Amino acid sequence: MGKKVTIRDIARLAGVSVTTVSQILNGKGARFSKKTQHRVLKLRDQYGYVPDFNARSLILQKSSSMIGVLVPDISSPFFGTFVKGVQQVAQHEKMVPLIFSANRDPKLEQEYLSQMIARSIDGLIIASATMTTDTISRLIGSREIPYILFDKNYAQHGTRVLTDDYRGGTLAAQHLVNLGHQRVIALKPRQQSENFTQRMKGFYDTLIKNKVNFDQKRDVIVASLSRPGGYAATAAVLASGATAVFAGNDDMAIGLLRGLTERKIRVPDRLSIIGYDDIYMDEYVSPRLTTIHQPILDLGIQSAKMLLSKIHDDHSSEQIRRFPVKLVIRQSTGQPRQN
Amino acid sequence: MGKKVTIRDIARLAGVSVTTVSQILNGKGARFSKKTQHRVLKLRDQYGYVPDFNARSLILQKSSSMIGVLVPDISSPFFGTFVKGVQQVAQHEKMVPLIFSANRDPKLEQEYLSQMIARSIDGLIIASATMTTDTISRLIGSREIPYILFDKNYAQHGTRVLTDDYRGGTLAAQHLVNLGHQRVIALKPRQQSENFTQRMKGFYDTLIKNKVNFDQKRDVIVASLSRPGGYAATAAVLASGATAVFAGNDDMAIGLLRGLTERKIRVPDRLSIIGYDDIYMDEYVSPRLTTIHQPILDLGIQSAKMLLSKIHDDHSSEQIRRFPVKLVIRQSTGQPRQN
Repeated sequence: MGKKVTIRDIARLAGVSVTTVSQILNGKGARFSKKTQHRVLKLRDQYGYVPDFNARSLILQKSSSMIGVLVPDISSPFFGTFVKGVQQVAQHEKMVPLIFSANRDPKLEQEYLSQMIARSIDGLIIASATMTTDTISRLIGSREIPYILFDKNYAQHGTRVLTDDYRGGTLAAQHLVNLGHQRVIALKPRQQSENFTQRMKGFYDTLIKNKVNFDQKRDVIVASLSRPGGYAATAAVLASGATAVFAGNDDMAIGLLRGLTERKIRVPDRLSIIGYDDIYMDEYVSPRLTTIHQPILDLGIQSAKMLLSKIHDDHSSEQIRRFPVKLVIRQSTGQPRQN
Repeated sequence: MGKKVTIRDIARLAGVSVTTVSQILNGKGARFSKKTQHRVLKLRDQYGYVPDFNARSLILQKSSSMIGVLVPDISSPFFGTFVKGVQQVAQHEKMVPLIFSANRDPKLEQEYLSQMIARSIDGLIIASATMTTDTISRLIGSREIPYILFDKNYAQHGTRVLTDDYRGGTLAAQHLVNLGHQRVIALKPRQQSENFTQRMKGFYDTLIKNKVNFDQKRDVIVASLSRPGGYAATAAVLASGATAVFAGNDDMAIGLLRGLTERKIRVPDRLSIIGYDDIYMDEYVSPRLTTIHQPILDLGIQSAKMLLSKIHDDHSSEQIRRFPVKLVIRQSTGQPRQN
């Protein structure tokens, strides 16, 4: 025996969210297009959907929005914390957050996203370095699924959260300059998204402004954006003769720190290291890592809040939230050793 | 205009997986109950579902199973790695893994699970310390959703993966005994699931067998199962006068290590520490952490493979996979200091 048609079935068939169907069927659909209203009402008649009192109160009072959260790598400390922020809001607001992580594989990301959309997800938070707003629009198609970008690529449109990477690079350089370093190198990823380009540009510009000799060919070491990547760069870092290193992110910095510890190179006496992100591991390595703090938990919290407001008001205008960064001085940076 | 009824709609309405519907509609449904076959065929007729050639080949050749993975805390290194194992299999096998994490809140876990079930998830991997097989059965109800337990509570039934915690505790104790420690303490969580009880029992039994004086009241420190928990226990550990500590998991051990480093207590010269799990952070703290290795990645891989085989063959019998543990000696344990 088949079950009764539910509001979720209507939402699925109409390609809109449950909230949209609920609002239209409850006479609050004026904000949606005539086409959408018509589609939903027609489906209701076609399938003989009658909202019963229980289901209705369930939906109006405590409907769960199921939201998808796409991250590049869930096992990284950065995205573990980001997702924790999303979950905090979810828990309060009766949303069910589903996390999907495609290991930075653009094809897989699109595949997963399509599947989520096909299963009537109510909203999406997309933190992907490769996904463009055009691709997202194409995948979502005619459905009305609100989404928030955690924007690493300075997209030209879409509601999104971003941080000030240029300023982060500036702060890192200024800290090393203030300590007296004159021979500085940077560790950066091979394929960098726009946020890394900005981060590095802020770093270079500030060094040059402070008359520190820096050559973007000679003084930049390319490595994979991971702990093993930083570890593998140890020999190259030592060969450079630098007294300080700016690692593109904390994972790289922590990998490098391990390489240096194994070779009994003292940090910061012999070499200063500054990272980027302020992941929780920074407090547990030895010496504890100086870094540029991104408000990772808060980025997750605000992304979820913005998504929620979009789910509840489909016509809310495009919003952009910019988050500040700041320098956190711990133990891995110090004055250069006097020769 | 409503969209055509899809095989997913039929699956949803029948409360079975897409694979089940596909097999029944393709004349391969003999393994399912008469009741299920009847329900699916009736829905097909009722909604006039006609599998078209494209959709059919899509389903038979490359259907995506959407599977849910419930973990207690996705931001922990342990479950980050476990999920990575699930994802590796998923990527090969065209499954979409959706991760949900309810921060060890049993009510929230049940709420999320219900939502996943209501949205026609194709299968579930459940790694929860609080969820019993009775609760899961109740939530799944009459639907046919295969699931795998990552079993921390030695459930009496259900297909599941487990590790040998008693033996893990034994290995930890034997290592400390072999180094010559006579004054040993343990750090354990306040509310422990069965796996911790077994782990600690293996530890105590082995100490006693080796004539090490150990009092379960005096020599056990209770702390929260986290890095901050281990860190907060630093003073109590030092006050105990022990020469070696067995921490219930690596997170606790790493928190304690930080507390000791801050107080300039040398590890292992003054105090040996052994953890449990072998999370990736063990390699990046200083000194690197000696621990009991659990095959975390492999636990994720095998859970996914077992689930897949259950999805493809609903009548597969109950399976239990036991995984071995082993001692990994790094730098945080050594002989006790001679007084």
